[in-house]
Amino acid sequence: MLILVINSGSSSIKYQLFDILNGKDKSENKASKEDRKLLCKGLVERIGSEKSSLSHQKEGAEKIKKIVSVANHKEGIKVILDVIASLDNGVIKNISEIAAIGHRVVHGGEEFKSSTPITAEVLKYIEKYCELAPLHNPPALLGIKACKAVMPETPQVAVFDTAFHATMPAHAYLYGLPYQQYKTYKIRRYGFHGTSHKYVAIKAANILDKPIEKLKLITCHLGNGCSITAVENGKSVDTSMGFTPLEGLVMGTRTGDMDPAIVFYLMKKENLDVDQISELLNKKSGLLGLSGVSNDVRDILREMEAGNERAKVAFEVFFYRIKKYIGAYIAAMNGVDAIILTAGIGENNAWIKERICKEMSSLIKGCSAKVLVVPTNEELMIAVDTFEIVKDLK
Amino acid sequence: MLILVINSGSSSIKYQLFDILNGKDKSENKASKEDRKLLCKGLVERIGSEKSSLSHQKEGAEKIKKIVSVANHKEGIKVILDVIASLDNGVIKNISEIAAIGHRVVHGGEEFKSSTPITAEVLKYIEKYCELAPLHNPPALLGIKACKAVMPETPQVAVFDTAFHATMPAHAYLYGLPYQQYKTYKIRRYGFHGTSHKYVAIKAANILDKPIEKLKLITCHLGNGCSITAVENGKSVDTSMGFTPLEGLVMGTRTGDMDPAIVFYLMKKENLDVDQISELLNKKSGLLGLSGVSNDVRDILREMEAGNERAKVAFEVFFYRIKKYIGAYIAAMNGVDAIILTAGIGENNAWIKERICKEMSSLIKGCSAKVLVVPTNEELMIAVDTFEIVKDLK
Repeated sequence: MLILVINSGSSSIKYQLFDILNGKDKSENKASKEDRKLLCKGLVERIGSEKSSLSHQKEGAEKIKKIVSVANHKEGIKVILDVIASLDNGVIKNISEIAAIGHRVVHGGEEFKSSTPITAEVLKYIEKYCELAPLHNPPALLGIKACKAVMPETPQVAVFDTAFHATMPAHAYLYGLPYQQYKTYKIRRYGFHGTSHKYVAIKAANILDKPIEKLKLITCHLGNGCSITAVENGKSVDTSMGFTPLEGLVMGTRTGDMDPAIVFYLMKKENLDVDQISELLNKKSGLLGLSGVSNDVRDILREMEAGNERAKVAFEVFFYRIKKYIGAYIAAMNGVDAIILTAGIGENNAWIKERICKEMSSLIKGCSAKVLVVPTNEELMIAVDTFEIVKDLK
Repeated sequence: MLILVINSGSSSIKYQLFDILNGKDKSENKASKEDRKLLCKGLVERIGSEKSSLSHQKEGAEKIKKIVSVANHKEGIKVILDVIASLDNGVIKNISEIAAIGHRVVHGGEEFKSSTPITAEVLKYIEKYCELAPLHNPPALLGIKACKAVMPETPQVAVFDTAFHATMPAHAYLYGLPYQQYKTYKIRRYGFHGTSHKYVAIKAANILDKPIEKLKLITCHLGNGCSITAVENGKSVDTSMGFTPLEGLVMGTRTGDMDPAIVFYLMKKENLDVDQISELLNKKSGLLGLSGVSNDVRDILREMEAGNERAKVAFEVFFYRIKKYIGAYIAAMNGVDAIILTAGIGENNAWIKERICKEMSSLIKGCSAKVLVVPTNEELMIAVDTFEIVKDLK
């Protein structure tokens, strides 16, 4: 079954086309590469500008890139469907072969505890949660509406970054705020990167060859954004990102955890308004702000080797907080079977695993835990979720 | 050696008079009750109002309370010295017998890594740090100046809440903020309750009968304010309170940790200014805000027993965060020899210890850790620190 996965940004659309023969349940852990084939992937960029372009790569072939005129998301979807079904670079004959479209949607609020077929009502909720994810939900809506316009008969599914964390208990998702703030504004921990945490948790259970329902896992998604999740018996029971993706670990440009009083102290000191302080904490802080070098761990590491002390301390702040979250979640679950590292930083730095094993040896040995590096694949997880839903619809 | 301990609030002065024969070092762990005798203690309240009063209690005698006119802190200190040296309720003949005065000072900034004799220069620093502790340092200054005026010849010592945490490494005290914010405004983790954490850490080493230099301890000060400290080899290496006492655990009326983005989200939503949001997060949140019942754990527990679900969830949020911090600090130190519970909540609820032992059994067993309840005594710690300094001065 062909599943198109769409990840819409404000001026870009990423896509991947999968052929899925086998989905979740028991078979999921055992699914072979043949059961879940990537056919092609690509990206439409700079939508609405004069420099809009398409990158496209057929699996096993070289990437092509061309300038194309793309005024809006609807045109972007058309460009994608055209190239997928084109003679020279395409992988299918007719877009009607696409059985369903899976959309990445960042925020599903408290409403969506799992992936869901997109109906008019679902669209309304995604719209409602634009307020909680002003940078992410509006472009997702654009992508969904564009697909609806171009392929009105094809089933569409929303896969939420927040859904996997919907299982968190109240003691983990509530802040120490007046309860009214939760009731009125739904201020609570939501968590993000759920699709990635879910994917690597399932993969880890496969590697450990144990049912996920009997495992305590800590999944560390360390990429541009970073978050850590405690996964008990296959369910997220706590995660480091919170009401927004600002909380938790120190990230490329985000502060992560911080005394909330610093926010208003700084606003007063520098006479910042709400938008300016948000910009400072989200875009100019983290590894970039601490090191003064870069938001990219690779650059930080290069500077560290060259003897840059600020780069070194920036990295240590980053790494130390990872250790603290792992410890906190071992406490939360009263044990851990495996700690999983994934995403750009987690997958490409073997020594992060080594340092964790060494510096947390007493906990890791005490729990007989394994530390695994498991490459993530959010797009595949979206495709599998979409497959499962569409399969059941038929 | 008679040491008067002074803890000044904005409209109150608490005092305790000790006779200290033996101070720190090896003898500290072994100090008997005879070495450190409390002679009397008391409180001058409602300074500056028409209802100002004095409570005074001679050790072993009944507490007396009387209305006295106290216009300012200087008059307050005079009232205290009068009662201490009075015929009927006093414990000494002449105030010249007092060898030194130890003052509790909340904020010593980055300047003070230990208790220090108060000089004109030290006073300037305490004044400078009023900005970082606007509720606490100004009254401490009033108390110090009042003592200087009344007993100009008596040595005075400042014992800082922050000093014990001055040993934290940079990776623990730096936030993920631009480094410039640290350099310019000294925004960093300072930590508080240091005198209490230090006292119970020393006591715990005594109970365990091991040198503190070879122990990994986690001290949980659970009172009106709550904080947890990782004490490695006798030194604070991390603590849950941060730039201000708002960060960390959920407390009576304080939020503790929270996505920093919530601060500006709420400000925008409710059109709050900097002072209003500070008031909300510091005074109306925590157990009080979550439960809607009280800031006092005793009331919360009573309501829980009566079946109040919100009180139950408030308590679970509070308790869960304690567990997470303990886990984080076990990770930070790569092990723990003892977890110590102290202060009002920590000392008076045996089942907190029981729940920690049960719910964190895998970590506690894995580390062969002990869980101890150790009553704190900040005033005695201040007296001992003061004794040590004054002894060396002579």
